[in-house]
Amino acid sequence: MLKTREYLSQFIHERKTVLTIGLDTDSAKIPSILKGDVLAFNKEIIDATHDLCVSYKLNFAFYESLGALGWDILEKTIELIPSTHLIIADAKRGDIGNTSEMYARAVYDLLGCDAITVSPYMGSDSVKPFFRDGKWVIILALTSNEGSADFQQQELKSGKKLHQQVMETSSRWGSADNTMYVLGATHPSEIKSIREKYPEHFFLVPGVGAQGGDLDAICEAGMNHQGGLLINASRSILYAGHGRDFAELGRREAQRLNKVMKNYF
Amino acid sequence: MLKTREYLSQFIHERKTVLTIGLDTDSAKIPSILKGDVLAFNKEIIDATHDLCVSYKLNFAFYESLGALGWDILEKTIELIPSTHLIIADAKRGDIGNTSEMYARAVYDLLGCDAITVSPYMGSDSVKPFFRDGKWVIILALTSNEGSADFQQQELKSGKKLHQQVMETSSRWGSADNTMYVLGATHPSEIKSIREKYPEHFFLVPGVGAQGGDLDAICEAGMNHQGGLLINASRSILYAGHGRDFAELGRREAQRLNKVMKNYF
Repeated sequence: MLKTREYLSQFIHERKTVLTIGLDTDSAKIPSILKGDVLAFNKEIIDATHDLCVSYKLNFAFYESLGALGWDILEKTIELIPSTHLIIADAKRGDIGNTSEMYARAVYDLLGCDAITVSPYMGSDSVKPFFRDGKWVIILALTSNEGSADFQQQELKSGKKLHQQVMETSSRWGSADNTMYVLGATHPSEIKSIREKYPEHFFLVPGVGAQGGDLDAICEAGMNHQGGLLINASRSILYAGHGRDFAELGRREAQRLNKVMKNYF
Repeated sequence: MLKTREYLSQFIHERKTVLTIGLDTDSAKIPSILKGDVLAFNKEIIDATHDLCVSYKLNFAFYESLGALGWDILEKTIELIPSTHLIIADAKRGDIGNTSEMYARAVYDLLGCDAITVSPYMGSDSVKPFFRDGKWVIILALTSNEGSADFQQQELKSGKKLHQQVMETSSRWGSADNTMYVLGATHPSEIKSIREKYPEHFFLVPGVGAQGGDLDAICEAGMNHQGGLLINASRSILYAGHGRDFAELGRREAQRLNKVMKNYF
């Protein structure tokens, strides 16, 4: 099923949530009862939460740290996600054209993801190979971490900040139908002004929860008539509990977030 | 064996070459006689070239495009590389701290690489988790592709270009003993001025060969008393031949490059 902008908007309005659940599953942090079985953990989390979210985001680092076994778990986890949900490969890739094309094959053709996060540092020919019919390129703009001040917030000679220039330039490579931006939840005032400039684009917003972003402020600043946001929570849901009831406690955390989001529909 | 700067310098001077061979092995491009067996191809290339280079660079995209099997091939290829050689994970990673830490585990602990290429866009806390005793962080500065003009060459308010700012800021995170920079072979005049400013750092220089960089110009602009460069060639060596003698033809291309480099020792 193609996850067009219209589809996403409809799905979001049906569910009255823009929740994305980040499957950043760390084998060392899952309940000991699972004996490090990441796939079993992911299955329980997906079973317990899929009616409460519109998307799952898979953080590739956590699977790569397990080697070939990790890739196997990644593939099998993706198969467990209902086909209604947007599946995001959180891989932050970006390389010269023939290499980006290889990453695109891995993520779209082999794994069947609908979207990938991409770093813009290497410019147009590193990002364009990720554009495909029915797929989403999610470009890093202003990230949630402290290091976002190092370069992303640097002012260019033109008066724009680097992340503003990244959005202005890269928004011409595609359109609001195939490009999203990563905007960290730790920057609500910037999200507000970016929303004014980009009324139609979807923004992927990590940093609510463990990283301390304010959910209400983000919804107020960033939502548009189509939803327009995918707000990601990872650790606060995955590790809500450490015993047999971890999935139920994760579900409750997702419900808590949804209760806030519902007010903006 | 720790690949310290002194070690690299000595190895480079013994061999009179700064050649790095990029194992960007595309299963669709290897001789048909190998029936798509990437590991067998890599083994023949390594056997035929290891006495002619000081380093191998593995482009992760090409392995990830094969899924779990690709990771297995990646692990087995790394085991085939002599322990004398610097092994570079060309992965261009970079994410929030806990995620970068996971990528570091994958690349250093699981795969046993000596170095990793990292994108600086997300700033200090995305790069610092890759610093480890005896390991090298290779930060993208000015890449070889056309898209390097989009952001890397943009002028900041301070008058510096973005890649210059990236080098100035990130050179304070580590030192010339654990930090290298990616500088594309398509920018020889920039490499010359960057060498003046950074006399001690090693630079990883891709873009000679298929991408058209001038080897003489790069050696002249970038070499220092320790060598100071790792010049990467991938496609021109890997695909020098398409028959049974592909490895021998790859070896000849490596010899041709070394003949040029020898003049600078």
